[in-house]
Amino acid sequence: MRYEPQDASKAPRFTGIRTFMRLPYMKSTDSVDFAIVGIPFDTGASYRPGARFAPAAIRENSTMLRPSSFNLNVNIFDYLSGVDYGDIPCVPGYIAETYREIENGLKPLVDAGIFPLCLGGDHSVTLGELRAVAKKYGPVALVHFDSHQDTSDAMWTGLVEGGGSKYNHATPFRRVVEEGLIDAKHSIQVGIRGTVYSEEDLQESIDLGLKVITANELHEMGTKEAGRVIRERVGNAKAFLTFDIDFLDPAYAPGTGTTEIGGFSTYQAIQLILEMKNIQFVASDIVEVLPFLDHSNITCWAAASIAHEILSVIAWQKKQGLR
Amino acid sequence: MRYEPQDASKAPRFTGIRTFMRLPYMKSTDSVDFAIVGIPFDTGASYRPGARFAPAAIRENSTMLRPSSFNLNVNIFDYLSGVDYGDIPCVPGYIAETYREIENGLKPLVDAGIFPLCLGGDHSVTLGELRAVAKKYGPVALVHFDSHQDTSDAMWTGLVEGGGSKYNHATPFRRVVEEGLIDAKHSIQVGIRGTVYSEEDLQESIDLGLKVITANELHEMGTKEAGRVIRERVGNAKAFLTFDIDFLDPAYAPGTGTTEIGGFSTYQAIQLILEMKNIQFVASDIVEVLPFLDHSNITCWAAASIAHEILSVIAWQKKQGLR
Amino acid sequence: MRYEPQDASKAPRFTGIRTFMRLPYMKSTDSVDFAIVGIPFDTGASYRPGARFAPAAIRENSTMLRPSSFNLNVNIFDYLSGVDYGDIPCVPGYIAETYREIENGLKPLVDAGIFPLCLGGDHSVTLGELRAVAKKYGPVALVHFDSHQDTSDAMWTGLVEGGGSKYNHATPFRRVVEEGLIDAKHSIQVGIRGTVYSEEDLQESIDLGLKVITANELHEMGTKEAGRVIRERVGNAKAFLTFDIDFLDPAYAPGTGTTEIGGFSTYQAIQLILEMKNIQFVASDIVEVLPFLDHSNITCWAAASIAHEILSVIAWQKKQGLR
Amino acid sequence: MRYEPQDASKAPRFTGIRTFMRLPYMKSTDSVDFAIVGIPFDTGASYRPGARFAPAAIRENSTMLRPSSFNLNVNIFDYLSGVDYGDIPCVPGYIAETYREIENGLKPLVDAGIFPLCLGGDHSVTLGELRAVAKKYGPVALVHFDSHQDTSDAMWTGLVEGGGSKYNHATPFRRVVEEGLIDAKHSIQVGIRGTVYSEEDLQESIDLGLKVITANELHEMGTKEAGRVIRERVGNAKAFLTFDIDFLDPAYAPGTGTTEIGGFSTYQAIQLILEMKNIQFVASDIVEVLPFLDHSNITCWAAASIAHEILSVIAWQKKQGLR
Amino acid sequence: MRYEPQDASKAPRFTGIRTFMRLPYMKSTDSVDFAIVGIPFDTGASYRPGARFAPAAIRENSTMLRPSSFNLNVNIFDYLSGVDYGDIPCVPGYIAETYREIENGLKPLVDAGIFPLCLGGDHSVTLGELRAVAKKYGPVALVHFDSHQDTSDAMWTGLVEGGGSKYNHATPFRRVVEEGLIDAKHSIQVGIRGTVYSEEDLQESIDLGLKVITANELHEMGTKEAGRVIRERVGNAKAFLTFDIDFLDPAYAPGTGTTEIGGFSTYQAIQLILEMKNIQFVASDIVEVLPFLDHSNITCWAAASIAHEILSVIAWQKKQGLR
Amino acid sequence: MRYEPQDASKAPRFTGIRTFMRLPYMKSTDSVDFAIVGIPFDTGASYRPGARFAPAAIRENSTMLRPSSFNLNVNIFDYLSGVDYGDIPCVPGYIAETYREIENGLKPLVDAGIFPLCLGGDHSVTLGELRAVAKKYGPVALVHFDSHQDTSDAMWTGLVEGGGSKYNHATPFRRVVEEGLIDAKHSIQVGIRGTVYSEEDLQESIDLGLKVITANELHEMGTKEAGRVIRERVGNAKAFLTFDIDFLDPAYAPGTGTTEIGGFSTYQAIQLILEMKNIQFVASDIVEVLPFLDHSNITCWAAASIAHEILSVIAWQKKQGLR
Repeated sequence: MRYEPQDASKAPRFTGIRTFMRLPYMKSTDSVDFAIVGIPFDTGASYRPGARFAPAAIRENSTMLRPSSFNLNVNIFDYLSGVDYGDIPCVPGYIAETYREIENGLKPLVDAGIFPLCLGGDHSVTLGELRAVAKKYGPVALVHFDSHQDTSDAMWTGLVEGGGSKYNHATPFRRVVEEGLIDAKHSIQVGIRGTVYSEEDLQESIDLGLKVITANELHEMGTKEAGRVIRERVGNAKAFLTFDIDFLDPAYAPGTGTTEIGGFSTYQAIQLILEMKNIQFVASDIVEVLPFLDHSNITCWAAASIAHEILSVIAWQKKQGLR
Repeated sequence: MRYEPQDASKAPRFTGIRTFMRLPYMKSTDSVDFAIVGIPFDTGASYRPGARFAPAAIRENSTMLRPSSFNLNVNIFDYLSGVDYGDIPCVPGYIAETYREIENGLKPLVDAGIFPLCLGGDHSVTLGELRAVAKKYGPVALVHFDSHQDTSDAMWTGLVEGGGSKYNHATPFRRVVEEGLIDAKHSIQVGIRGTVYSEEDLQESIDLGLKVITANELHEMGTKEAGRVIRERVGNAKAFLTFDIDFLDPAYAPGTGTTEIGGFSTYQAIQLILEMKNIQFVASDIVEVLPFLDHSNITCWAAASIAHEILSVIAWQKKQGLR
Repeated sequence: MRYEPQDASKAPRFTGIRTFMRLPYMKSTDSVDFAIVGIPFDTGASYRPGARFAPAAIRENSTMLRPSSFNLNVNIFDYLSGVDYGDIPCVPGYIAETYREIENGLKPLVDAGIFPLCLGGDHSVTLGELRAVAKKYGPVALVHFDSHQDTSDAMWTGLVEGGGSKYNHATPFRRVVEEGLIDAKHSIQVGIRGTVYSEEDLQESIDLGLKVITANELHEMGTKEAGRVIRERVGNAKAFLTFDIDFLDPAYAPGTGTTEIGGFSTYQAIQLILEMKNIQFVASDIVEVLPFLDHSNITCWAAASIAHEILSVIAWQKKQGLR
Repeated sequence: MRYEPQDASKAPRFTGIRTFMRLPYMKSTDSVDFAIVGIPFDTGASYRPGARFAPAAIRENSTMLRPSSFNLNVNIFDYLSGVDYGDIPCVPGYIAETYREIENGLKPLVDAGIFPLCLGGDHSVTLGELRAVAKKYGPVALVHFDSHQDTSDAMWTGLVEGGGSKYNHATPFRRVVEEGLIDAKHSIQVGIRGTVYSEEDLQESIDLGLKVITANELHEMGTKEAGRVIRERVGNAKAFLTFDIDFLDPAYAPGTGTTEIGGFSTYQAIQLILEMKNIQFVASDIVEVLPFLDHSNITCWAAASIAHEILSVIAWQKKQGLR
Repeated sequence: MRYEPQDASKAPRFTGIRTFMRLPYMKSTDSVDFAIVGIPFDTGASYRPGARFAPAAIRENSTMLRPSSFNLNVNIFDYLSGVDYGDIPCVPGYIAETYREIENGLKPLVDAGIFPLCLGGDHSVTLGELRAVAKKYGPVALVHFDSHQDTSDAMWTGLVEGGGSKYNHATPFRRVVEEGLIDAKHSIQVGIRGTVYSEEDLQESIDLGLKVITANELHEMGTKEAGRVIRERVGNAKAFLTFDIDFLDPAYAPGTGTTEIGGFSTYQAIQLILEMKNIQFVASDIVEVLPFLDHSNITCWAAASIAHEILSVIAWQKKQGLR
Repeated sequence: MRYEPQDASKAPRFTGIRTFMRLPYMKSTDSVDFAIVGIPFDTGASYRPGARFAPAAIRENSTMLRPSSFNLNVNIFDYLSGVDYGDIPCVPGYIAETYREIENGLKPLVDAGIFPLCLGGDHSVTLGELRAVAKKYGPVALVHFDSHQDTSDAMWTGLVEGGGSKYNHATPFRRVVEEGLIDAKHSIQVGIRGTVYSEEDLQESIDLGLKVITANELHEMGTKEAGRVIRERVGNAKAFLTFDIDFLDPAYAPGTGTTEIGGFSTYQAIQLILEMKNIQFVASDIVEVLPFLDHSNITCWAAASIAHEILSVIAWQKKQGLR
């Protein structure tokens, strides 16, 4: 039994209910290798909200994705059976409850060894995902593409008593270290740039034990060398890939909440993913897509295409006998 | 067994796979009273194409629809079980093949006495629908809201040999008369306006046996009197309601291919539907929504809301013991 | 010899060079009854510029206009030969030079007794047009649809020496009285509303000898009674119809520079034009369309449709032997 | 000392820092009659967030407002001194903290007898405002324009323990009754419509002691009669006017989170406000503007214009010696 | 006699009827070196239609093009006389009829040795163009910029009897080989990328005798080396240049029907065209521009600018005595 | 005393009156090191107007800028005190008056040795700024990023008597040489490209004594080498940096009036600014942002981010003891 997308020769790509890649929508974990999971949450956003509409918008724009990867020469569905698992019932304004729903929602997938590819939501959702993942696999290596470190201790310290807001989209990667969900010494952040609060911001990540490739460094070294650095850092650890769409330049991904200029093209993003094709990813997410600010759907399409390339890596690993 | 929308207290309205009103997506006809059917076809469009994306866009915008009608004081799902039946696999460029798919696709629904509410597509699709409907019920009364009569004999007569193009969105209501699918003497067109090819255009409908309430007449007489005229015309006949979204003024429905100024508000549209609450509708469609030209989704939302009101009428008739 | 639009049965409406209604583009005055003239000027705008792109945008959206009026039961081209005369070469930043170009550009048309229908441009252009018109016909009756009176004496009095800026879109109807281009006692302004500089603003028009129907009065009296008042005011005078698109409510005409809420629908606008079907118009314009702020082209389409109705009135008068 | 907008003859309306109407931005309460207060909060939104950007967007679009009301023949600044008081520092995700900030922020204004005109924010903010208002004035009459009642007891009952979420944009008008902040027997909701959860929804308001004019009733009775009913209901009570922009039809106000068709025009809204010109309003707000979904700024402009009319009523009352 | 654009010092660029570069609109072939020909057809599109509006939108955006090429140091109109030849009357839904119109429409131009630069339309139109071209010149070398190969045998094989749809935008470059219209051994496809149906997709082109430079290869080798490869492939053959706008990355060309990430910048596109400045092009087209999805006109402007560079190459060849 | 942005931990970034970076709005020059000055003027635009709305739109989008530069490792406000000085009262249609206002408006700042960072406006405003700057500092070195040279002698020579329009956005850099405001031998233009009027256009700049790095040259040499060339050219001269946003490619900056393909990324722009970190800039501007044509605010955000980097250079120079 293999779940695969609808056949476009019998049902044109503009037809049908909008699941990711027109996969069957099923809550089952039976005969499933990967599952697309929407996490429509944006209460963690400090500036522009609206990422709760990202899972639906990415699905809507995923219907043109064909089954095979040009880059890896693999038909995903020759090696993997996949479903659209629907959405986690996130609760606006209630981050603890939402974390509970994310953790509980992903548990059956993670327990069954299924690869969950989550579509956020703002970046706060990754903490919930990593709680589910670490419960099964222990601390994992984090590969984190982003223009921001998201390692603040708290936001709104002048407004929320007791040290400010600890759970939001600016803090998850401090929390995941504190909660022991990732193995910092195999973890890396890539693409960091933008204006910052102080000269010490970058040090935060280093103090947490993370390695950082800044945007300037990545522009200088190129994707091949960056790939080498990432592979060296992750080694053989089981890994989690989190892709904040604002890693891309605003020209390539205008539809996100806190853009930073001087970013990367989709070509560079895909090259980096291909560089990591031997890393043992156990889960992944793509976050911070904001459809209200997208135009011509290019951000949603970029997100869908990146998701496709991640799935292609998993399929390629199957084809190569690597998983 | 009753199929109804997801419970919003457990799954917020911005979550989930985009079926109409978050109904279950099923191809089954078992225990079903009404079915939403997408007909994503736009090859019949003479000017702006893109209505093939209307079913998906209307579904996306239908998730805020709550189960009850404020106007009719009825909870649809207390009286009706409904599903989203998905889309007819329409074929761009192939209208005959598409008509075959529409007719075959609707047959199981119509045969089972299920009320199909179709989401076009350009107005050419109504011919396919009426072929399915008339096979079951014989010629039906047509209630046709539109700014255009769509009763031309042919388009592109100077370009297509043999008298031009006979099947497209300008001709369906001549064809349905010719094919004996509607009972012209109980049929009526409402809202006709706009610039026309010649002073004789209006006569076309009359020569086909149809009654017409022009936009000017409707503005003059008001919705109550128009309701009376429609009811009188239809009488006790089984009826088909086709709602071209350009019946509405461009201010209310910018997202359509051939707008005409001087149109109607959504309030007037709803009042007219309520006036017809005793008419025995056996099927319906909403056509000519063009998401590329919509803004802020107001056209898609109007279409979804009108669909809701039509379903409410059916539920109300059940409640009243009228069907 | 009669110039008329391209035949849509041989050349679909989405094809061809964008002239108004797909009329021939000609500078000739021979065998011509009406001429469309673009006046792409916006230096007179005090707030949002961009009306210089209106003539092109209205033309682009005029291709769906069919030759006959539904309301007047007349095919324009059975009675009139028309051309698209192209654009006046307006000069950004140079209003005096632009007025000279407008006046010189319209002169051959007006002299030949051709009906010019001008597409502005901000409202300052009407002064240039009226200079050309009055040179031929003497002072004419002005019928002025607008949300603003445009009767200020000057703008930027604190910034421009010598009493401020005298020629811009806030002042033309004071200037036309001062220059003796209109016959104030047969002239009328319709639709005035919005926030104002002081309680005395309305008095300005009255002091100039103009009659005003405010928006509130028009809402109260309705279009039939307003038609009667306008006809009574104009009498048998030769008249100039100037239609500022912001007469319409922003819901109907978002694409303009200084919207005012509480405005009118396109249906009401058309009814008013029909009420004036016996008035002897000698020229007309439609101004203040701002394509940058339009959406789904509804403002441009409204402008094109209103232009069509004005031409239909002229054709109807020909048909009735009234001109 | 009177604070008033910048002089447009010296500083064109497109220049300058975007305060409301280009009033001075001051935190002072000295010599101030009214204050514009932004409340940029949207965590209370159940569907589309983004109203946190409404205060800035309404200010941006308010610069064309001139000082006088056409309808009331009054120059606001002949009778009132006003400032833009800036924004309440709302905290995303923290509604209790935000209520505290709103209450504390408005206190100095309310205590000083200044009329606060608040720009939301989603409708949850009104509870915070009314806490500040009732502390000074005791329970006030509520005049509530909206398409929704916002009287639910809780949202997300299946997801949040302890009975669901009690504080959000669906519940404020149950809470204000429970907290004794309004005098229900002098309070009224106007414009209620849309699809509903059950046939009993309307009864909720009635059970809370509120009077309701539904949209259907308002369409039937007209604004004059509705004005009479509102005045009769409010009587001489001190009153709070809350205007949810979705009272307007989506054609007039597309930029909001949960549109309902069959709504009202800006003309009708203004007429209703004028009908209430003798009511003793002590505070007011305009909520649920969502700039991400606005187009051509028509929703923001409608909100700004309605704010102007409310201020004009206050000025008119001063002029008449009524306050 | 030389036809050239209007003089901008006498008629500002925002004025005038929208022909390409403000050239005269003429059907004549007399004294003409190149002709712009619109082919507004989109029935061949499998996903998003709307390219029928591309010729008008590209013309609208071409008015800022000045006569000289910065890159080639040549004023086009010093060496070439050019006209806008208008549009081919394409028939929606009728691809055979449209091919006939294209072939007949181009024949007089091709026969007269005029260089036609066609503005599509979806990519299916190129088959019609090549029929006209090959009739005059025999099989030509094809230089094909695209993200897709467009070499499928058929679409909708499960829906259209007799092997599916043979003529559409996915199949033209199989058809042109089968019909002997191009000389495959001198032909090349450049820029191929995106998700594919199977691992064998690329082989399709090779089996047809075409050479392919994939996007990955092009990113690796750079435009200079790619230029060398293209020149070597084409040799001295007469050539046809077809430029699918989706060769560009979605960041540079969002307005197209089936975007693929990882594409190219306009700078790279122009460099490639310059690399080919010695190739003997006899005709060219630019296809798949979809104005509905463009924003800020950047796609239309890119298309217009690329057209300008192609014309500059032809002028440069004249200047060098190469043609 | 140091003026700095509001503290985001106490006032979230989406709150507050929109000054640049949420700096205090003050007309004072006391204790001020830099001042943001809006120059909302667009009468100089030859094609698309609307840059008058740029200062407000850039401010609106500047609120996410944090105080420190990632690239220069400096917190601006550790070394500089800055204010938003508001807007110059520009007069539409009156360029001489506007120049007077600009010159007078900047004088107090320049005289006090404050660094003015001006936000245009079309490029004509730079002449006004340089008049103020040169009065204080004498002729300065000009570093000019742009796709156009803006060195024409006049526009509209066929329409404006006396040799056409001398003051507009196509002519400022001829005027500044003629008026002796810049030191041409230390001045340089960078990024020139696009279609041109004639093969001699580039020579204009050279004849004026300016050095030019064309876009093609910059693409070839890279930003490091270009930096070297610029530094060598400027030497130790006091310099003025003018940044026309159309230096960026339309993919990165769609919101401008006259885009040219083949441009630069924001990364390249920032690298160039960093290369100049030792140049003694005394003033700067960013011009030609056109918010009407922006989407998702990416152009305004790019402009704000570039402004931030310029300020960071000034702060870094302070930190290094270089100023």
